[in-house]
Amino acid sequence: MQQAELRFIGIVHGDILRLEDAPPFYDESEHTGTLEIFPTYQDGLLGIAAGDTILVLFWLHLAERSILQVYPRGDKARGLHGVFATRSPMRPNPIAVSELKVLAVQGNRVEVAGLDILDGTPVLDIKRRSKR
Amino acid sequence: MQQAELRFIGIVHGDILRLEDAPPFYDESEHTGTLEIFPTYQDGLLGIAAGDTILVLFWLHLAERSILQVYPRGDKARGLHGVFATRSPMRPNPIAVSELKVLAVQGNRVEVAGLDILDGTPVLDIKRRSKR
Repeated sequence: MQQAELRFIGIVHGDILRLEDAPPFYDESEHTGTLEIFPTYQDGLLGIAAGDTILVLFWLHLAERSILQVYPRGDKARGLHGVFATRSPMRPNPIAVSELKVLAVQGNRVEVAGLDILDGTPVLDIKRRSKR
Repeated sequence: MQQAELRFIGIVHGDILRLEDAPPFYDESEHTGTLEIFPTYQDGLLGIAAGDTILVLFWLHLAERSILQVYPRGDKARGLHGVFATRSPMRPNPIAVSELKVLAVQGNRVEVAGLDILDGTPVLDIKRRSKR
């Protein structure tokens, strides 16, 4: 088995509307937005509440998957790096890992702060970090 | 588009050989092992070296994908939780995120410490955390 099939569990809504407005390397951000979780997966949200810190995995659907080496942060002086040594969105499996703050949960909608992801990007997973 | 195809970039070799020996919730660990990156993707390792901290994404190929609620850490007193509120391996996309320490890199083999993943588990991605 050399591959597996991902299922999108939702989609992000935010104010980063164009690829050129998205931070090239996902990192800290002040943007807020909403994770719309598809009804099929809504039961998985039970127990997530305002104030939680969550790790969210996104599928960077516009990213190039065949490139294996890049110039980090566009700095050619640093030389070519393997994509696994960088935080470039370009990689064989373009999965972003973002740590977000939960502002509110209403039904299948999770309001979050800290977004650095393009509006319309598919959501793959949520993992609550904070313990109670 | 409601799904996408993952490509396995490698496989982990370690001393956690049976599912019942794997920590039920991936967390800190003293286990060491090797990430064998398939030759197709080896160029992506350029720039990763001993001493680096890396985030590694694994595909938990044995995990149940259809369960949306669980009892966290088997503690029924805490009640049912949505899988997204837990660190259970059971979730629609069973992707584990592990922070590992690089002990050595030799060709397509990355020796790591901190493994909590079953021997033979597919590797999806590596992201270097440490900056130089």
